[in-house]
Amino acid sequence: MENWITSEIKNEDLVLSSRIRIARNIKSLPFPHKLKEEEAKKVIKEIEDAFYTSSSMEEDFNTFYLWEMDGNLSNSYLERHLISPNILATSNKSAFILSKDETVSLMINEEDHLRLQCINAGMNIREAYDMADKIDDMLEEQLDFAFDETLGYVTACPTNVGTGLRASAMLHLPALTLNDEINEVLKVLTQVGMTIRGLYGEGSRAEGNIYQVSNQITLGIKEEDILNNLEATVSQIVNQERKARERLLKQYKYELEDKIYRSLGILENAVMLNSKECLDLMSSVRMGIEMGIIKDMNKNFLNKLLVETQSATLQRKFNRVLAPKERDIERANLVKKYMRENQ
Amino acid sequence: MENWITSEIKNEDLVLSSRIRIARNIKSLPFPHKLKEEEAKKVIKEIEDAFYTSSSMEEDFNTFYLWEMDGNLSNSYLERHLISPNILATSNKSAFILSKDETVSLMINEEDHLRLQCINAGMNIREAYDMADKIDDMLEEQLDFAFDETLGYVTACPTNVGTGLRASAMLHLPALTLNDEINEVLKVLTQVGMTIRGLYGEGSRAEGNIYQVSNQITLGIKEEDILNNLEATVSQIVNQERKARERLLKQYKYELEDKIYRSLGILENAVMLNSKECLDLMSSVRMGIEMGIIKDMNKNFLNKLLVETQSATLQRKFNRVLAPKERDIERANLVKKYMRENQ
Repeated sequence: MENWITSEIKNEDLVLSSRIRIARNIKSLPFPHKLKEEEAKKVIKEIEDAFYTSSSMEEDFNTFYLWEMDGNLSNSYLERHLISPNILATSNKSAFILSKDETVSLMINEEDHLRLQCINAGMNIREAYDMADKIDDMLEEQLDFAFDETLGYVTACPTNVGTGLRASAMLHLPALTLNDEINEVLKVLTQVGMTIRGLYGEGSRAEGNIYQVSNQITLGIKEEDILNNLEATVSQIVNQERKARERLLKQYKYELEDKIYRSLGILENAVMLNSKECLDLMSSVRMGIEMGIIKDMNKNFLNKLLVETQSATLQRKFNRVLAPKERDIERANLVKKYMRENQ
Repeated sequence: MENWITSEIKNEDLVLSSRIRIARNIKSLPFPHKLKEEEAKKVIKEIEDAFYTSSSMEEDFNTFYLWEMDGNLSNSYLERHLISPNILATSNKSAFILSKDETVSLMINEEDHLRLQCINAGMNIREAYDMADKIDDMLEEQLDFAFDETLGYVTACPTNVGTGLRASAMLHLPALTLNDEINEVLKVLTQVGMTIRGLYGEGSRAEGNIYQVSNQITLGIKEEDILNNLEATVSQIVNQERKARERLLKQYKYELEDKIYRSLGILENAVMLNSKECLDLMSSVRMGIEMGIIKDMNKNFLNKLLVETQSATLQRKFNRVLAPKERDIERANLVKKYMRENQ
């Protein structure tokens, strides 16, 4: 698997990453929200023991105990999608195991005892699934997962019961957002058991026009079908987005180019940039590169910027809490640096 | 005298140009608004005959008859401040004589039979006055101007009676505008018989934060005092503007730099620019250069752009009427060209 933030991507590719998430619980133990701190830490130990079975595992992975981390550090992992907002709410009894290349993470005592995530660059969900499946098999040799013959894997939240599998992809959909077609897309997806959400999962707004498409249904459906559905859905949405872009270019050529180039000019020159504006401007520049309107620019750096301009990751560079205005200034500095380097 | 649009100016200088305007009428003839077309053309002939007394005059000056010019062409002279909006309303019986370097213009049959203008670059009102005085003397040798022993020169509008002299300067006052102190300045100026107006004279808004300061009173005051008053007033306003800028820089350093650099970025990259936004952005960049925030950029080209981005002047390049959207596109192209050349 390849890290979506640092890997090379094609300029015309609209899928940033694809992700597999598997939910598992240990048999005959209460779900995490009912666990006392001590019991929760035992679960962590149990999963760690099952996971670190070989020295190569110890070489490639690290465990992070949330109670040992300051809020800003854990938030920076959140900003890279390696952990979820939920796990931060129970940081006294949660941990995560992370591969050094940051493509695999195992959240322990989030909603479920185990949430295994494999994130791959671009639309490569099969690779991510194979990796998740391998790790799941390995863990299952050591751990007794809660499994019901009729329902399948038992999870804390009924929406995950069954396969416990969620397959998702992160897409850049500025034209469908601009045209307001995104709500129509959402409606259609709901009908086929899929859903679309903003950048940081459930309930979050679509910042920077980046959306996450995933299966809503985990019960009564085969893993293979979940993967097929995602691939088909993503391919369809990407087509819709491309058509919306073509229409935009046909009807509003100058307005579109104006928006794209102004965004470029502001990113290259601004002295202060708040997070929301920065995401919007980066989305326009990304679209400009994807559509070949901005030439001689490779969009790889935009994924790095997407993560590094987030508040917590930004503050890690300074090793201290920055006031909002300072953050806006340093965000602008960082953006300018990247823009200069990627001309 | 030097043409304010093309001459070299110091980056820190806030006065774009200084202008003398003298109003004269020919004795025993009705004021222009009462003249029939034929009579009006006789006035034009009379003034031309008085003016073109030597071959050097004929070499350095041209007469433009407004009834022979298309509206866009005459508007482009308006945009360079060489004629007034008033004269365009009576184009069937008006003309103007213009020096080839475009520093001297004589409007014939505007509000008065003769309006002589001398425009000089920067704050150099004395030179402009000397030139106007010389031409006035020369004309007075040939023409019999309406003059009342008690009142002085008689003019169509009572506000010009007396010296018939208006001395003005064009200033860039973005900080006083931003701070909303400009209205206070106006109040004080009114008390000392001066006034401040937007870029295109009476009644016009202060587009691009460029204002025209001039004497309101022409009666019962000596020419010398009018010039002294203007110089003192301009120097005072320039000081106020500089102090307002210092305060801005002290209190809102990053916000100010952000505004300036974003404006630069947009001017360098926009694909469409309407006239108002363009003036605002150019004002920010001008302020940035004047304050030394933008370095390695000479602001001379901004005066050229100020005129060339105006609709009529812009359209002259294409020799046809452009639709508003086309104008915005061509304005952006022109701005980008100048920005590239002046990096």
